[in-house]
Amino acid sequence: MAYYQYHVFFCVNQRDGGETCCANCGSPAMREYVKAKIKSMGLAGKGKIRINMSGCLDRCEEGPIVVVYPEGVWYTYVDEEDLDEIIDQHLVHGRIVDRLRI
Amino acid sequence: MAYYQYHVFFCVNQRDGGETCCANCGSPAMREYVKAKIKSMGLAGKGKIRINMSGCLDRCEEGPIVVVYPEGVWYTYVDEEDLDEIIDQHLVHGRIVDRLRI
Repeated sequence: MAYYQYHVFFCVNQRDGGETCCANCGSPAMREYVKAKIKSMGLAGKGKIRINMSGCLDRCEEGPIVVVYPEGVWYTYVDEEDLDEIIDQHLVHGRIVDRLRI
Repeated sequence: MAYYQYHVFFCVNQRDGGETCCANCGSPAMREYVKAKIKSMGLAGKGKIRINMSGCLDRCEEGPIVVVYPEGVWYTYVDEEDLDEIIDQHLVHGRIVDRLRI
């Protein structure tokens, strides 16, 4: 059994020189939003869900990026509404959100 | 097909107050070692291997921690020799290193 049912990584990398990067899209705050929401829903922890920050996932031009393991489903998002949909559809109901998938 | 054949996350989190944490075990330098080695072996990139840093993976007492996705295999390590074994056995030959697994 997987240590985490869903292990989610938000790229929070800040690139230099104004280059396109996830941090410029507000990814640190977005990750905090999802982490807090998952915790408030009682879904955080071993056997359940972990919301992590990561370094550069090297898909900068497609970002901001979040990847859900162990499935290896990659998403982008614009706002909290997109993230709510990933939480509700994917992390709660196991249904991949095709419209946000990259 | 997975975007990365092996997506590896090293916890580099630094906890406050001297608490046990991966960064205190030198994990940032260890991650740099593996990242550079994978690159020098020509194994870095899409369809191959990505070596990332992450925030706290919440297995602090078992650390330092590295997790290999999509398999979700968790390891600890002491030194570069351990990491060489993970590279050679797991990342190159697809064989899990039981002695380092947690």
